[in-house]
Amino acid sequence: MHKKLIFLILACAMVLSSCEEQKPTVQKEEWSIVLHAGAGGSQLMPKDTEDQYKIFLNEALTVGKTILENGGSALDAVEQTVVYLENCPLFNAGKGAVMTMDGRHELDASIMDGSNLMAGAVAGVTDIKNPVKAARLVMERTPHVLLIGEGASAFAREQGLEIVPNSYFTTEGKKAELAKLLEQHAQGEPHGTVGCVALDKNGNIAAATSTGGMAGKKWGRVGDAPIIGASTIANNDVVGVSSTGHGELWIRQSVAHDIYALMDYKGLSLKEAAHEVIWNKIDKMEGSGGGVICIDKNGEIVMEFDTKVMNRAWAKSSGECGAAVNPVVSE
Amino acid sequence: MHKKLIFLILACAMVLSSCEEQKPTVQKEEWSIVLHAGAGGSQLMPKDTEDQYKIFLNEALTVGKTILENGGSALDAVEQTVVYLENCPLFNAGKGAVMTMDGRHELDASIMDGSNLMAGAVAGVTDIKNPVKAARLVMERTPHVLLIGEGASAFAREQGLEIVPNSYFTTEGKKAELAKLLEQHAQGEPHGTVGCVALDKNGNIAAATSTGGMAGKKWGRVGDAPIIGASTIANNDVVGVSSTGHGELWIRQSVAHDIYALMDYKGLSLKEAAHEVIWNKIDKMEGSGGGVICIDKNGEIVMEFDTKVMNRAWAKSSGECGAAVNPVVSE
Repeated sequence: MHKKLIFLILACAMVLSSCEEQKPTVQKEEWSIVLHAGAGGSQLMPKDTEDQYKIFLNEALTVGKTILENGGSALDAVEQTVVYLENCPLFNAGKGAVMTMDGRHELDASIMDGSNLMAGAVAGVTDIKNPVKAARLVMERTPHVLLIGEGASAFAREQGLEIVPNSYFTTEGKKAELAKLLEQHAQGEPHGTVGCVALDKNGNIAAATSTGGMAGKKWGRVGDAPIIGASTIANNDVVGVSSTGHGELWIRQSVAHDIYALMDYKGLSLKEAAHEVIWNKIDKMEGSGGGVICIDKNGEIVMEFDTKVMNRAWAKSSGECGAAVNPVVSE
Repeated sequence: MHKKLIFLILACAMVLSSCEEQKPTVQKEEWSIVLHAGAGGSQLMPKDTEDQYKIFLNEALTVGKTILENGGSALDAVEQTVVYLENCPLFNAGKGAVMTMDGRHELDASIMDGSNLMAGAVAGVTDIKNPVKAARLVMERTPHVLLIGEGASAFAREQGLEIVPNSYFTTEGKKAELAKLLEQHAQGEPHGTVGCVALDKNGNIAAATSTGGMAGKKWGRVGDAPIIGASTIANNDVVGVSSTGHGELWIRQSVAHDIYALMDYKGLSLKEAAHEVIWNKIDKMEGSGGGVICIDKNGEIVMEFDTKVMNRAWAKSSGECGAAVNPVVSE
């Protein structure tokens, strides 16, 4: 009888102890930064091309990393990193944006400040050189979050932002891509959206995303990039997220907010939350998938994608850093 | 010694049993519907005005209720109810929409199907008589979720939807409101957005929202109404939500998805989740607040608002129904 009782107590104790949260000690980074410049592809990128991409990814990373190392804000870091990526013709944002079906460029961008949950975004703009700068000014100088089309351009002009002819964004590569899509009566997969998430020395998280959208798009189609809660979120207490991928899926699943909610309400780790959303939700939907880059309040970085490749680079105050396009073992 | 052991076992058993979910038996409605037509105001509405509003709210309700009673789909019920509200000049959607700073109308709408998480939306449209119809066609006949501006109009025209001159939406009341705002160099509070959520006999939940936005808005400002996850969400397994209020707050908090997530990930009841978001998040932010209407998978209805009034009407298969503007005790 005694033995049975002791066994029961031990069993109870085991069940009870398993209910307690097992919190491993977490190293908190002083600062942390991660960027993406698109995800997609039906195969891995050849090694030499990857090496070329990594040069630009590392240069972009250095922009934000330098700001953070010098005690600058996460907001400045993500904005300036995205400006670099917008100006780089390699990616689908700013210069180098894909073309709409009628051979033009319509750009979207968003930014969020995790310290106060303020946010700004622009959608369907055709002449603002750096849409992410416009998004930041919407956040800081208007009572609004989202401005679209000509109205957004008028605002950017009033604010003294650089205005360019629509042809500024055109590159020969994207022209050829559109010609091929028109021949096939198809729309392209959304590749090359750019974004950045950062945690600064003051514990502030910020996130920004910018894109030219989907090649061959029409009817003023807007994806997830300018939608706070879909592509972009920042909350100092939980996480910052920026996304790249098949925007419609991101909107339907409120991907960025879903990662936030799985962490805050369900207690999932950043890795678990990002995995759950990308693999158990996005990957199960009909579409071309994509990826997210995330930083939690401790500076932990997660880059999760269900595509063959994702252009990305990352750095932490503890010294860990890198750039990659194809999957790497350490992630 | 025996007594101590028995006490310990009992204590363990109590702790364990308290871990089990205590699910009360819930009455499941055969169908359920709730609509809103805006929230706001600095004081309660006079009784006689409320009575006039209730006539229109009840008429709108009858549209959707009849569809549900006859075995129609939640999607048809919310679309047709919102079409009625768009056509009614009393509310800020379709005919009767507020005016932008330059005396025009820019309309936004969204719809979501909780059976498959498909969604559609339009933003900044100026000539589509019923934006909610366009939102539904975006969902059903394109691979996209969000179309904006002239592109959205071109799509609506291709689909044979009724196109009207921008002046169709103008009413004397909204003209006078704009004149007053311009005199005060102000923007109006967002009042009169409309929306509907329904659960049909097949267990499908749908939600739709439509608005003219904020009176005196400029720069192509877009609020939460066309943003899936902010104003509108539908998921058969959890909840449907439509919102009205200060759209920027809704976008920053991903309100509709937040209610979903608090229920699905944190186990809150519909009432608790809506209360948490409206009172502990929205009401604590600087802004003019607003409200949400929600239906969970059992057909339970919650209407939560932090404003003085919210135009609303509701009905359940079990017989409970009503229309109200001012707060009522039974809620």
